[in-house]
Amino acid sequence: MLLVMHKDATKEQIDAVMAAVEKLGCTPRPIPGGMRVAIGILYNKGPVDRGHFLSLPGVQEAIPVTRPYKLVSREVKAQDTVVDVGGVPLGNGHFTLIAGPCAVESLEQAMTIAQKVKDAGALIFRGGAFKPRTSPYAFQGLGEEGLKILAKVREKTGLRIVTEAMDSTEFDMVEHYADMIQIGARNMQNFSLLRRAGHCAKPVMLKRGMSSTIDEWLMAAEYIMEAGNPQVVLCERGLRTFAVHSRNTLDLSAVPVVKKESHLPVIADPSHAAGHREQVGPLSLAAAAVGVHGLMIEVHHAPHEALSDGGQSLYPEQFSALANDIRRIVEVVNPGCPEVCRS
Amino acid sequence: MLLVMHKDATKEQIDAVMAAVEKLGCTPRPIPGGMRVAIGILYNKGPVDRGHFLSLPGVQEAIPVTRPYKLVSREVKAQDTVVDVGGVPLGNGHFTLIAGPCAVESLEQAMTIAQKVKDAGALIFRGGAFKPRTSPYAFQGLGEEGLKILAKVREKTGLRIVTEAMDSTEFDMVEHYADMIQIGARNMQNFSLLRRAGHCAKPVMLKRGMSSTIDEWLMAAEYIMEAGNPQVVLCERGLRTFAVHSRNTLDLSAVPVVKKESHLPVIADPSHAAGHREQVGPLSLAAAAVGVHGLMIEVHHAPHEALSDGGQSLYPEQFSALANDIRRIVEVVNPGCPEVCRS
Amino acid sequence: MLLVMHKDATKEQIDAVMAAVEKLGCTPRPIPGGMRVAIGILYNKGPVDRGHFLSLPGVQEAIPVTRPYKLVSREVKAQDTVVDVGGVPLGNGHFTLIAGPCAVESLEQAMTIAQKVKDAGALIFRGGAFKPRTSPYAFQGLGEEGLKILAKVREKTGLRIVTEAMDSTEFDMVEHYADMIQIGARNMQNFSLLRRAGHCAKPVMLKRGMSSTIDEWLMAAEYIMEAGNPQVVLCERGLRTFAVHSRNTLDLSAVPVVKKESHLPVIADPSHAAGHREQVGPLSLAAAAVGVHGLMIEVHHAPHEALSDGGQSLYPEQFSALANDIRRIVEVVNPGCPEVCRS
Amino acid sequence: MLLVMHKDATKEQIDAVMAAVEKLGCTPRPIPGGMRVAIGILYNKGPVDRGHFLSLPGVQEAIPVTRPYKLVSREVKAQDTVVDVGGVPLGNGHFTLIAGPCAVESLEQAMTIAQKVKDAGALIFRGGAFKPRTSPYAFQGLGEEGLKILAKVREKTGLRIVTEAMDSTEFDMVEHYADMIQIGARNMQNFSLLRRAGHCAKPVMLKRGMSSTIDEWLMAAEYIMEAGNPQVVLCERGLRTFAVHSRNTLDLSAVPVVKKESHLPVIADPSHAAGHREQVGPLSLAAAAVGVHGLMIEVHHAPHEALSDGGQSLYPEQFSALANDIRRIVEVVNPGCPEVCRS
Repeated sequence: MLLVMHKDATKEQIDAVMAAVEKLGCTPRPIPGGMRVAIGILYNKGPVDRGHFLSLPGVQEAIPVTRPYKLVSREVKAQDTVVDVGGVPLGNGHFTLIAGPCAVESLEQAMTIAQKVKDAGALIFRGGAFKPRTSPYAFQGLGEEGLKILAKVREKTGLRIVTEAMDSTEFDMVEHYADMIQIGARNMQNFSLLRRAGHCAKPVMLKRGMSSTIDEWLMAAEYIMEAGNPQVVLCERGLRTFAVHSRNTLDLSAVPVVKKESHLPVIADPSHAAGHREQVGPLSLAAAAVGVHGLMIEVHHAPHEALSDGGQSLYPEQFSALANDIRRIVEVVNPGCPEVCRS
Repeated sequence: MLLVMHKDATKEQIDAVMAAVEKLGCTPRPIPGGMRVAIGILYNKGPVDRGHFLSLPGVQEAIPVTRPYKLVSREVKAQDTVVDVGGVPLGNGHFTLIAGPCAVESLEQAMTIAQKVKDAGALIFRGGAFKPRTSPYAFQGLGEEGLKILAKVREKTGLRIVTEAMDSTEFDMVEHYADMIQIGARNMQNFSLLRRAGHCAKPVMLKRGMSSTIDEWLMAAEYIMEAGNPQVVLCERGLRTFAVHSRNTLDLSAVPVVKKESHLPVIADPSHAAGHREQVGPLSLAAAAVGVHGLMIEVHHAPHEALSDGGQSLYPEQFSALANDIRRIVEVVNPGCPEVCRS
Repeated sequence: MLLVMHKDATKEQIDAVMAAVEKLGCTPRPIPGGMRVAIGILYNKGPVDRGHFLSLPGVQEAIPVTRPYKLVSREVKAQDTVVDVGGVPLGNGHFTLIAGPCAVESLEQAMTIAQKVKDAGALIFRGGAFKPRTSPYAFQGLGEEGLKILAKVREKTGLRIVTEAMDSTEFDMVEHYADMIQIGARNMQNFSLLRRAGHCAKPVMLKRGMSSTIDEWLMAAEYIMEAGNPQVVLCERGLRTFAVHSRNTLDLSAVPVVKKESHLPVIADPSHAAGHREQVGPLSLAAAAVGVHGLMIEVHHAPHEALSDGGQSLYPEQFSALANDIRRIVEVVNPGCPEVCRS
Repeated sequence: MLLVMHKDATKEQIDAVMAAVEKLGCTPRPIPGGMRVAIGILYNKGPVDRGHFLSLPGVQEAIPVTRPYKLVSREVKAQDTVVDVGGVPLGNGHFTLIAGPCAVESLEQAMTIAQKVKDAGALIFRGGAFKPRTSPYAFQGLGEEGLKILAKVREKTGLRIVTEAMDSTEFDMVEHYADMIQIGARNMQNFSLLRRAGHCAKPVMLKRGMSSTIDEWLMAAEYIMEAGNPQVVLCERGLRTFAVHSRNTLDLSAVPVVKKESHLPVIADPSHAAGHREQVGPLSLAAAAVGVHGLMIEVHHAPHEALSDGGQSLYPEQFSALANDIRRIVEVVNPGCPEVCRS
């Protein structure tokens, strides 16, 4: 933290600020400048509250300097983390396709779609059993019945399973059936859920909240890692902005930034960002080109009959063609990537 | 929902869309226009998925027409709801001041502040026992010990108590001690928590998520009401925007809109929106002038020693002067308001 | 500017960064910290480009420290500026009401409205002769004929005139007729227009662009002042955010911040921010309570027949009642304010 | 426009609304629904003001139905427009690389960079002679001297020239020297400048304003086309959002949407969106993958000495390698594209 003093701050004010820094157990370092003094705060262990200092007389600005996160940072672990999703690697040197319907609706629906996405090269199957819905009157998912269907899909196809848990009670159940547990965008700062995920022996996919900064997203991952689980996959799924032509604005610039700051793998979910089928293909290719470690794409064999999000689901044949183009783009940006969603 | 067809949509496409509407159990009504046909969807019971229709051939746009919420709507209940917070009314014809520290730190701290905010006219005491913190390394609250302190504050001062619950386990505990349970902005779409709040016999204060539309906020309240709890207080606390001079951008235009759409009381939390002490006073007066039914303001007797959010807490004497100005403004915009934070 | 080096930056990298700072004619000051070195840039005359340093090897972050603006700053001029609008003061110790229609449509329309807003206490009349319209097919204003009507309104009523200029050619004409020239939100960073406004002998009202930070807004005012015109009035009119219930989100927290940073007067335009008549009254009162030096409000005697923005215009009787409430609120927040829109 | 009446709107209110529609010369069509009546407005020639109807008694909502733009729309011209930039085609079936420094600094600088970007496959050279700068104290460009340098670059290298004009006076000069005139993001709704561009015989590149919707962007293009110039290239360059890790958030979902709505070519400027060199490469590849018709990328042979935006400029060797990858990606998404920035 750097404290910038007012041009006309008095010596007494400066001394009082330095005393306040020392009181926190940190070391103040005055930096006399051309027109004003600044005071660096050194040796702070955790985050320091800006407001604490902004309210002291004579302080004009308090500027954070160091990153608030530790375990997720490349400064702590330089080499890329590869997450193990029931034997399927996700991360450095691999490109992993995840696909499936928004919600599990029946065994027949799930198996039909699973077979098709497997044929197209997906290694992990997605499908919601517990659905976060804006309206209490909308379809909320099949619950444990949905989880059992997902387990059967794994048994029959060999695809690994990722599905969402929305609270701690569900978490136990989801952990039992799934290979990776998803924490949704709306729960990115549900700190109880993050702590529960930290006690999980399976990997966690953490979606970025739609109004979260990268720092907040990495701090949410830090909660999980700090509680004991090093297997975190980050998933960019779009920001809430004023633009309404897509459901959210996919923030692809976050990908190189996260890859620079953190060793954790980062994937994208273009389906939820777009909200419209015709944007999903182009955004998937864009995400592959920007350097994600994988993609999660919604596919449905009969979108018009889907119980949720049908309008953003690809037809299986669209997904199959798209997977081909994705592979070719991954070969351009990451030549020799060994697992390029082999089909 | 109104489906706008492409200028050159074929009769076959129009017929297929109408069949799809009927398949959902709704009634399609074609509306021939100057250049194109539109199709109204009538008699739908719940929300209809836009994407479902956007993906049909020939459909150019799908436009929601009716509101998605019911129980929270003035169309269902015309007269204002007055929420009963342990005997203190909040809503139509009352203006209720809520004040206290960000977090409960000790009995002495809580009692010191409580006495001062009571003297200044507050009727409800706020203070966090469970704190949602961006960093796992930051102070997380005293937990049940904090709740017991709050109960003692009520016993000694007569102030009612509002405090936050972050998950269902905590909810049971908080419900036992508090007069009103707060659901925080980050949990506004934690649907498990909303359902739990719906089974609560005490009123719930629902903060608006910092990237939530008014529709989403009212739908979150609908979750609580639909599960059985009609006592919901809405709390505006600022949006995440590109502007960084305040922590969030307090959206005061939401207040008249919510008051028109819903019968539920709506208050504001200028402290969290501002994040800087010197903005809290002006924004409190602005919120009072725009017509809120109450204000929740952070006060600390020694902000520089606060364990969280000290920089946005008012000194007791600042709060006391502010409460006076608030009273005078409420008298302008709501003359005769009987409970104007009597002191 | 503070340059934060990577934890593992080499001595060579640090030396190279210091040399780069010196090359710009500034003084580098190394600040050894607990884990890393930071380098302060001192004695820079103008703004320093962040990107310039971010691209140097070993630099992790470049953090602006001092404000980029000068002439608009309270550090240069401590006391409030009072702008003279043809004899009507606007600024410190005065509260000035500006009202009138969105666009001048005819002499009769303008005179009808002007008489009514004058009766209600307005001192300055607004009305567009040149209208910035999103669509080339929408009404673009009466041009010079509109300016002549405005001049006649001043002659007959004594009200001062503010109206918008959109380019340098129009500026000459507007300067001839008006008492204050408005630069619209869309032109806030039209630097040619700002420079032209800097050569103007009359005051300029500078609306905040709907995606502008306070720094950018003040820098736009700096353009005008730097070119020679010290008479600038800032006008907050709302931000573009994801919220759609109002046209824009009025950023009232900007008012105390601008008043702290700058000596220039700041007013608000709730009509354009709201876009809906029923929000204009509450937002006007909120803006008065937050401490603006004046308000600009749209009024039309027959909004349903207005050629633009009828839906956000108040009826004269609404404006008259609102002006009364505004006066009472100004008396609360700024007691003794001498010019409180005397009627 | 669709007018949704309140559930309890009276017959008199409905009749009054229908009369108001007729008064505008349009045809009202009542649509009785399950719970309420809606009224379609048919045969309107231009845009209809929402606010006009929202303020009528009994009207709950006014929903725009048809697009406001005409000439830019695929409904008016189905086939893709190919713009001719001094003989270089830009649009359907071509992929055009534009590169060069942010600002022209000297003939030597410009020629050095031009030769390198030409070698890498660029066909058009960019470089600012008039620079829009947030600060009046920053380098503002060389003016006409810069334009003469650009003309010399064209003469020596055969590269076509694109450069920005900020006002009508400059426009004449820029039109004389350049092959394509850029209108910057801050001027996207400078309607005087748009009209001037409409009288230009050369193509215009219209950057999207950083808080502009797609509708507003296309309406700005409509201004140019309506005034007589059909040669418009759209350029996406990022939105202002709360995210600060990049200067702006590149909105790649806009590309498929614009390509569906309009026949005009659309390119991207990842350099200004990113603001950081290390994001430029990944975002360029992403934009190529999403389907743009070209890219505009900043390149400087000595970024650390650049007078503006050095931090986001690629080194020539970086650009050369990037151009290769871009070509390979274009071949994936647009096989057979004939002009793929041949080198």
